[in-house]
Amino acid sequence: MNSRRLESFSDGVFAVAMTVLVFDLLPIGKDAATAHGLTYVLLSAWPQYAAYAISFLTIGIMWLNHHTMAAHLRQVDRGLLLLNLLLLIGVVALPFPTALVAGHLNQGTPGAAKVATVTYGLVMIVISIAFGSMWLYLTSHQATLARGGRLELPRHARLRFTGGLWGYVIGTAAAFWSAAAGLVIYALLAVYYVFENLPTPSAEEEEGAADGR
Amino acid sequence: MNSRRLESFSDGVFAVAMTVLVFDLLPIGKDAATAHGLTYVLLSAWPQYAAYAISFLTIGIMWLNHHTMAAHLRQVDRGLLLLNLLLLIGVVALPFPTALVAGHLNQGTPGAAKVATVTYGLVMIVISIAFGSMWLYLTSHQATLARGGRLELPRHARLRFTGGLWGYVIGTAAAFWSAAAGLVIYALLAVYYVFENLPTPSAEEEEGAADGR
Amino acid sequence: MNSRRLESFSDGVFAVAMTVLVFDLLPIGKDAATAHGLTYVLLSAWPQYAAYAISFLTIGIMWLNHHTMAAHLRQVDRGLLLLNLLLLIGVVALPFPTALVAGHLNQGTPGAAKVATVTYGLVMIVISIAFGSMWLYLTSHQATLARGGRLELPRHARLRFTGGLWGYVIGTAAAFWSAAAGLVIYALLAVYYVFENLPTPSAEEEEGAADGR
Amino acid sequence: MNSRRLESFSDGVFAVAMTVLVFDLLPIGKDAATAHGLTYVLLSAWPQYAAYAISFLTIGIMWLNHHTMAAHLRQVDRGLLLLNLLLLIGVVALPFPTALVAGHLNQGTPGAAKVATVTYGLVMIVISIAFGSMWLYLTSHQATLARGGRLELPRHARLRFTGGLWGYVIGTAAAFWSAAAGLVIYALLAVYYVFENLPTPSAEEEEGAADGR
Repeated sequence: MNSRRLESFSDGVFAVAMTVLVFDLLPIGKDAATAHGLTYVLLSAWPQYAAYAISFLTIGIMWLNHHTMAAHLRQVDRGLLLLNLLLLIGVVALPFPTALVAGHLNQGTPGAAKVATVTYGLVMIVISIAFGSMWLYLTSHQATLARGGRLELPRHARLRFTGGLWGYVIGTAAAFWSAAAGLVIYALLAVYYVFENLPTPSAEEEEGAADGR
Repeated sequence: MNSRRLESFSDGVFAVAMTVLVFDLLPIGKDAATAHGLTYVLLSAWPQYAAYAISFLTIGIMWLNHHTMAAHLRQVDRGLLLLNLLLLIGVVALPFPTALVAGHLNQGTPGAAKVATVTYGLVMIVISIAFGSMWLYLTSHQATLARGGRLELPRHARLRFTGGLWGYVIGTAAAFWSAAAGLVIYALLAVYYVFENLPTPSAEEEEGAADGR
Repeated sequence: MNSRRLESFSDGVFAVAMTVLVFDLLPIGKDAATAHGLTYVLLSAWPQYAAYAISFLTIGIMWLNHHTMAAHLRQVDRGLLLLNLLLLIGVVALPFPTALVAGHLNQGTPGAAKVATVTYGLVMIVISIAFGSMWLYLTSHQATLARGGRLELPRHARLRFTGGLWGYVIGTAAAFWSAAAGLVIYALLAVYYVFENLPTPSAEEEEGAADGR
Repeated sequence: MNSRRLESFSDGVFAVAMTVLVFDLLPIGKDAATAHGLTYVLLSAWPQYAAYAISFLTIGIMWLNHHTMAAHLRQVDRGLLLLNLLLLIGVVALPFPTALVAGHLNQGTPGAAKVATVTYGLVMIVISIAFGSMWLYLTSHQATLARGGRLELPRHARLRFTGGLWGYVIGTAAAFWSAAAGLVIYALLAVYYVFENLPTPSAEEEEGAADGR
């Protein structure tokens, strides 16, 4: 299969998964007829906004990483498609732990906040494993799958596609001890990836890739 | 109509239908203020996760099959568009029986679990009939619709596009007797299709198809 | 603006609007713990399934009509974009009257069923006016907007893009008298358009259009 | 990164964000079993329809502005991608303040209506800042990012991409005093942008841009 269709399909899934995050915000304000008034309700929902922004950035960065990887592909085979589906299962599920964290961070018991934060980390670990597996698969099948028959990603790209796994393992472990510690690590990972700079192919090269050449 | 636009529109519908599955997960954890705590609530929701993963894989495989079929098309006519709409009606509806199965598998009466599983099978049968009809239609109109005027799919592709029907009929029949038996058959069908390997046109051939030549 | 981007954006909106229809189905079965059991709940929800199928087909046909119109465009201007936005406002809103009709057809008072059916008709009238206006606008600006500087749609295309309006006016009027009569007319309009056959440009011509030539 | 993929991804997000607005309408009519009947319920929900239409138009115009900007791009870099993500965070969040305004305009206390309208304005200010920042970034990086190495947008385009900010600051300030005043200003801004006419590149030029040349 041509890599272009994999990209456009995955783009659609990433775009919708991002948009689904707003459903974590929509119920806020429905119960505003409290003694405190709407301002209090909106301000005390700050964990929802933080969770929305972090998950949005995280999916945005995964989209970017996905594109960087796909830009080096000539075609995709069944194995890569399967790993890509596994990745998307995780990406699409992300609004679920996001809602869990947002809903239990400053409500309910401290134990519930930890459980929610650990769940978030577990989903990110599944996503990271899928991403790392795609990278390993691609490396070992570069003769048939990579553009030009050879993967020309710089060495530190390996870190980009596999390093997140260790970050999320540490974050999840920290969340067993403190929900706040886990969340800070997840947020730092998102911010790190925003600024981490991996060269992508130039417009000319990429255009060739988009044409399937 | 050019087959490219049919593909991109169908891709969009497949992508959104996949993403809608997460709405079956979102309410989990809302009622976590039970005596058992959030961990118990999350663990006892395993049928939701299983149903999510199976339906996600199933839609993913249908997307793949759809692409394999579309890659051999030169253009589409009104009849094919109608059958494609019928297919999409089923695909988009799938989150509904998925939610039914997830919600009644280990809650409520055993009878409800069977009814939910039978409903899931019936929707899959509608989808399989639409897929099989597209295949039959395409076979009988290959002179005008197929790229090169002749369908060049190998003989066992017929099994791919029609064989699922019998699998889902058997699964649905088994679900009348036992919900678990029906679900195991649906899961096996999803896994079988993941590994079943149908050659798709090479990147060069497909590129020509994408260009409508 | 190039007509290609208008098409792909509108395609996305059509695809998501179709998929949103499933949210009218998702709550069915949630209250299955009645004396009647899940089978009864599922069977008595038939208005939901009928409304889902009719609205799905209706949006599918609008997508098809939209494509037929767009295939004759060379470029789009601000006026056409505005009319297209008006059309999409109606298309995206359609799941709302669909839910109204499905929820009040065999529940509540007969008056509520009529009100819901009239609302459905009013939204379809807005959509039909937007479609008809796009057609009139396109006819009067064919020198700058049409491919080849001249709209080459056959005469009965006018009926296709404007005729639905009268059908929905009649259906809405009938719904004031009887909800069932209105719904039958809406369903007949959907089925009629499914089989009504308007020639679209051949693959070669269309390819040129897609390239913006 | 090629600007084409940024566009198609952003298009997907814009399209889904528009469609999510219908979820503000779906619950209307659910509680129709009041003494007043469904007609009263539907008519008294007019703030929902107004909010739906204004937000739909607003997102539609942002999509159009986004396209105008993107049509002048040759490629995108990390900074522009980050600003684009910030823009999309705001666009995707817009159904949230829309629901707030619709739900508190003629229900609850006047104070709640003001708070909701101020919240709407704050989200629009975030979006306007993101848009203005993209414009500034693009202006200062035109040698590498603009098609032809030079941004050829007319001078008043600056107003288009930055002027909205001041409009929304004024509207938000007015909303502290009166919710209705704020909403009228937001509606006027939407209508103004609908008719404000910025020349976009001709079809031929744009086609070149779409091809990444």
